[in-house]
Amino acid sequence: MTHYTLAFLGFGNVGKALARLLLDKQSDIQSQYGITFSAVAIATGRHGSALNPGGIDLEKALSTEDFSSLSTRPAPADMLAFIRECGADVLFENSPVSYADGQPALSHLRAALESGMHAFTANKGPVVHGYHELRALAQQHGVRFFHESTVMDGAPLFSTFRAALPAARLLRFTGILNSTTNLMLSRMENGESFDEAVAYAQRIGIAETDPSGDVDGWDAAIKVAALTTVLMDVPFKPQEVDRTGIRAITPEQIAAAAAQGKRWKLLCRAERTAAGVQARVAPEMVGPETPFYQIDGTTSIVQFETDVLGRLSIIEEDPGPHTTAYGLLADFLNAVRTN
Amino acid sequence: MTHYTLAFLGFGNVGKALARLLLDKQSDIQSQYGITFSAVAIATGRHGSALNPGGIDLEKALSTEDFSSLSTRPAPADMLAFIRECGADVLFENSPVSYADGQPALSHLRAALESGMHAFTANKGPVVHGYHELRALAQQHGVRFFHESTVMDGAPLFSTFRAALPAARLLRFTGILNSTTNLMLSRMENGESFDEAVAYAQRIGIAETDPSGDVDGWDAAIKVAALTTVLMDVPFKPQEVDRTGIRAITPEQIAAAAAQGKRWKLLCRAERTAAGVQARVAPEMVGPETPFYQIDGTTSIVQFETDVLGRLSIIEEDPGPHTTAYGLLADFLNAVRTN
Repeated sequence: MTHYTLAFLGFGNVGKALARLLLDKQSDIQSQYGITFSAVAIATGRHGSALNPGGIDLEKALSTEDFSSLSTRPAPADMLAFIRECGADVLFENSPVSYADGQPALSHLRAALESGMHAFTANKGPVVHGYHELRALAQQHGVRFFHESTVMDGAPLFSTFRAALPAARLLRFTGILNSTTNLMLSRMENGESFDEAVAYAQRIGIAETDPSGDVDGWDAAIKVAALTTVLMDVPFKPQEVDRTGIRAITPEQIAAAAAQGKRWKLLCRAERTAAGVQARVAPEMVGPETPFYQIDGTTSIVQFETDVLGRLSIIEEDPGPHTTAYGLLADFLNAVRTN
Repeated sequence: MTHYTLAFLGFGNVGKALARLLLDKQSDIQSQYGITFSAVAIATGRHGSALNPGGIDLEKALSTEDFSSLSTRPAPADMLAFIRECGADVLFENSPVSYADGQPALSHLRAALESGMHAFTANKGPVVHGYHELRALAQQHGVRFFHESTVMDGAPLFSTFRAALPAARLLRFTGILNSTTNLMLSRMENGESFDEAVAYAQRIGIAETDPSGDVDGWDAAIKVAALTTVLMDVPFKPQEVDRTGIRAITPEQIAAAAAQGKRWKLLCRAERTAAGVQARVAPEMVGPETPFYQIDGTTSIVQFETDVLGRLSIIEEDPGPHTTAYGLLADFLNAVRTN
């Protein structure tokens, strides 16, 4: 039996779903993997922080509004100091991030790895801005940096390549990776205007007040950059993706596609070429003979082409905070399991 | 650098494709995983056998019609004796198998594991007839028994669950797992009769002279049993699958489905219930809103439902002996790699 102490940075929807999942799976994890764990640190932006080397009660953490009430000693307000002093073996990094530079998540992860902690994140920013550095740092300190939930939530993309497809070389991939625009295009097929579709996505909480991150293809481009950086092992920035969003798609174009038995989808593509990786995000018309046609609403897909298999597609339906949380749990177990 | 000696049982299309892949990937495997290897034993049914502890030249093996010409010492004609005396660290088992009892592959794998060899197979028979026994035997001898290529060729199903989805509980799965019938149904949609579609599948070499293994759903049922046995950890026999083949599907039914915008597919289903696992193979009509609709020809799909993710589908296109061979190579590397 090996015991791990856990630290949570950020305890919003994903952090809470992870805590719930850890509680639900605790006895399975103990019996299947010989692993036990306790939460020793939780830091939040607006609800205080808790440090308790003896173990924070996660049930209590799930219902509190003030984490400092769960703390047995003063918690540093500075996040880097908090990470260095929390004494945990594992960091789950889920704090708000800037996609421009991956901060402050990148610094958090760096501090954790340098302190000899395994570090896992659902934040794409640090992957596109620091993957190779963080991987090297992890190696140097004998720990792991994993980030399964950064693309397609908890669906096993990075881990499948890492642990199930040895000696495979990824040549290209094609996918639908942004749920918000995919849902909007589905709504527009049902007669909504672009603005109505944006308003709907905002109403159900999947689009921001400023929807440009989704509709201009930035979120998709960041995911393309993350997949390229990790799975092709080629550092790649979102700005390098040839990017067209869905703003220019008109109801007339949607109708014209339907008349041909086709649909508009915001397709992500990346390919190794002699001149390096070429990547783009752009609306394309797809027919029912492709696996992209039936990808509705918040479902996503990625189709991989390698040198060893035919095309291999992975489709994830019904994502949510609980599936993002599962990706983080999987990262933790995959990093430390011995069987 | 760790060196592994390899034995091949059966050296037909798959064995040859594996030898070719090993040659192609040799330097990548050495640089990425610190693993080197040499072939020391090849046994075939009709072209003799070779034993050479110093290493059989795989290029020569790929072009010979008489393996005994590559042997440096007498090779036992008895397969079990051959396995016990070959001195290899790894057995790739690809000899002809009976689906009724998984023999003789089951005995070959048992002998290999008992001799402390890792054992990998593309044969479904030993999985449905001996998985739990072989797994226990492997554990007892500190080696691994893997079988990625038994379902959907080299697509990573077993390895994804084993290495990428820790603590996930598989609740049900649905799939199209038999390429021959899927191709036949596609041909019938294009106007061929059942008999013409059988004849076509036989002509291109994917259906046997007696096509009942495919058209009566046996091959699909064996795959359902293999997935259930391994991924649900519930021993399950093909005979326990409620099985209906595609013989009764008429051109009229195909046309009626098309008129509704649907297609007939031979769907495989298994589900955990309070009364144990319930499984069936039967033709079903599917619409374009499902991922099954666009699965054409020899493409296959499986959709998994677990307690931790939404539905997760894996689609494999363009299978062939080279993808089956990759599954065997992946099994080998996944069993012995240390990074």
